[in-house]
Amino acid sequence: MEAPVQHGLRIDGLEYSIWDRDRFLEWREGGLDAVHVTVSIWESARATLRAIGEWKRLAHVNSDLIVIARTNSDILDAKADGRTAVIIGIQNTTSFEDDLDLMWGFHEAGVRIAQLTYNIQNSVGSGCWETEDRGISGHYGRHLIREMNQAGMVVDVSHCGERTCLDAIELSEAPVAITHGNPREFVGDDVELAIRNRSTELITRLAESGGLIGLSMYPRIAPGGSNCTLGLFCEMVAWTAERIGVEHIGIGTDLYLGHGPDQLHWWRCGRWARQPAIQISGLPVFPDWMRTPAQFGSIEAGLERKGFSQAERDMILGDNYFAYLGCVLSSGATTR
Amino acid sequence: MEAPVQHGLRIDGLEYSIWDRDRFLEWREGGLDAVHVTVSIWESARATLRAIGEWKRLAHVNSDLIVIARTNSDILDAKADGRTAVIIGIQNTTSFEDDLDLMWGFHEAGVRIAQLTYNIQNSVGSGCWETEDRGISGHYGRHLIREMNQAGMVVDVSHCGERTCLDAIELSEAPVAITHGNPREFVGDDVELAIRNRSTELITRLAESGGLIGLSMYPRIAPGGSNCTLGLFCEMVAWTAERIGVEHIGIGTDLYLGHGPDQLHWWRCGRWARQPAIQISGLPVFPDWMRTPAQFGSIEAGLERKGFSQAERDMILGDNYFAYLGCVLSSGATTR
Repeated sequence: MEAPVQHGLRIDGLEYSIWDRDRFLEWREGGLDAVHVTVSIWESARATLRAIGEWKRLAHVNSDLIVIARTNSDILDAKADGRTAVIIGIQNTTSFEDDLDLMWGFHEAGVRIAQLTYNIQNSVGSGCWETEDRGISGHYGRHLIREMNQAGMVVDVSHCGERTCLDAIELSEAPVAITHGNPREFVGDDVELAIRNRSTELITRLAESGGLIGLSMYPRIAPGGSNCTLGLFCEMVAWTAERIGVEHIGIGTDLYLGHGPDQLHWWRCGRWARQPAIQISGLPVFPDWMRTPAQFGSIEAGLERKGFSQAERDMILGDNYFAYLGCVLSSGATTR
Repeated sequence: MEAPVQHGLRIDGLEYSIWDRDRFLEWREGGLDAVHVTVSIWESARATLRAIGEWKRLAHVNSDLIVIARTNSDILDAKADGRTAVIIGIQNTTSFEDDLDLMWGFHEAGVRIAQLTYNIQNSVGSGCWETEDRGISGHYGRHLIREMNQAGMVVDVSHCGERTCLDAIELSEAPVAITHGNPREFVGDDVELAIRNRSTELITRLAESGGLIGLSMYPRIAPGGSNCTLGLFCEMVAWTAERIGVEHIGIGTDLYLGHGPDQLHWWRCGRWARQPAIQISGLPVFPDWMRTPAQFGSIEAGLERKGFSQAERDMILGDNYFAYLGCVLSSGATTR
C-alpha cells in the first residue's frame, strides 16, 4: 500500500454504543469524520436488518450530525458538510445465516464491514476464544470470502483465531482488516484478553497483503489496561509502525458506552452458553484520555509528542483507514 | 400535480418475472429506462432481503444492462448510460413482519415501493379478495403509512380493497399509487379478476390527491382479456385520462414471465390457504402486442393513433411515473 492521499480525516475504526444524539454530538466534538459502528454480534438476519433500520431512522432524525456512508465519497461529503459518516458493520457473519445471497442483501442494505467470527467457531472459521482454531472452513468459508470480495465488503478478522486470520489473509483477494486489536508482543500477556491481541507474524502478513490494523486503548487489550497512558499507547503505535509500516495503522477505540451487564452477557454468551467461557470483569473503564469519542482528538497530541509528523498523524488517525476502505470497496460491485 | 418535466422516459410500473440476462435484453429492446420489480409477496423479512441480494448480484453480473435505482437521478443516469434502472418493490407489507424498523431497514436496502396488502387482510388493511374490507387498521396501519411517508416509500394499493384504498389516500401525506390496475367502469365485470379493478370514485380521489394509476393489459383485468387489442387498451387510456387527467396515468404491465404453476399457487395461497379462494385459470396469455417487455414500444404507436400528442405519450409511458416517484421519494428521508 502506498502512502494514502492526505485528506486529514479522523476515523474511529470501531464503536458499539447505545446510540443517541448525545453520542453524535460527542463524535462532532471529537472531530470524527467517520465511525465504523457495529449493528450485530449474535443477531439473526432479521434483527440485523432492523438494527440497520434503526440507524436509517437515527440518520433521518439527526441529519444535521450524521449520515450513513456507502462509499468513500460519502465520507468526504460528510466531512465537507461537517457531519460524521456512519460506516455500518457486523461483528459476526452468522447474521448472513449461511446464505450467500443474504450477504449480498446486507451489502445492498449498507453493510460494508463483516467480521468472520466473534470469539468462537462458526460455519466460516474459528474465533480467538476457541479451544482449537480450525482455520477457514473448506466450503462455505471460502465461498463467502470470495463473494465478499466480489461485493466489496471488508473481511474483518479482529476476533478470529490466529490460523483463521492467516487463512483469511491468504484466501481473500482484497486486503483484510483487524479493525480493533493490538500487537501481543508489545502488550504482553498481563491484560484481561491477551488472546484478542495478535502475533507479530500475523500483523506482518496482514500488512504485506495491504491490510490494516486499528490499534485500541480498550482496557482489556491495551498495554497497562485502564491505566494505559497516552504516552504508552503512542509508544505502541510507534512500535507497530516500525514493524509493519505506518501506512497500515489506524485507530479502533472499541468504545461501547451506555450498555449494561445484560448486553455484556449477550456479547459473551449469545445463545450458545449460560456462562462466559472466559471470566471477564464488568464494564471496562477506559483510560481517562479516552472516556468518550469527544476525546478522540487527544490521540493527536500524543502522537505529536511521540515525534509523528502531521502527515503521519493524519494517516494513523483516518487517512489510512480511508485508503484501505476505498481499496476494498472499489474492487467490488457498484456500491452506491 | 402539474404536467411533469419531459424526459421521454419509458417505465414499466410492474413486472415480476424469472429474472435473467435474456429478460434484461428484452428490457433494452423495449426501450425501458426503468422497471418496478417485485421481490416479495408472502416472503419473510429474511427471504425478502435475500431476494434483494439476488438483485444486487444480478446487477453486478449484468452491469452493462441494468442498475439498481434508489433515487430519481439514478433513473436519469441509467437512461443516459443506456441501461435499465431497477426500482425494487414488495407487493405485501407482511415482509416488514409488523416491525416499523424493518420498514426503515428495507428502505435502506433499496425498497422504494410497498403494497399495503396482497389480496387478503393483513395487519395493515384488507385486500380486494377479502370477504369484508375493514379499511386501514387503527394502530399499526396508521403508524406504518406515516413512517413510510417519512422514509420516502411509495404506498401502493393495487391489490387492496376499496375502503382500504380510500383510507390510505386519506391517511398518507404523500400521494398513493395503484401501480397496476384498471378502471372497473370501463373494463366491466366480464374479466377474470374484475375485483382487482378500481371504481371511478376511487381513481378520481387518487388523482385528486396527486396519485398515479398504472394501466395494465394483464389479461385477467384488461378489457377483452387476452384478446384486448392495442386499440381497446388505448381507448381505456383515453377514457381514464378524460376522467382523472392524463398526468395521473402510467403503465404497469404486470408481466410475469417464466413462472410455473407452483409459483402461481404460492402467490394465490401463500401459507394461508390450501386452495385459492378464487378460481383462476393457469398462466395468462398476454395480448399478442405485449407478450414480452421487448414489445413495450408497441404502446406508443397505439397512443399516437388514438390522438395522444408526443408530450402526452411521454407522460403516460414514463414521465408521469417518474414525477410521481420523485414526489414521494424527495418528501422522505435522504434516499441515497
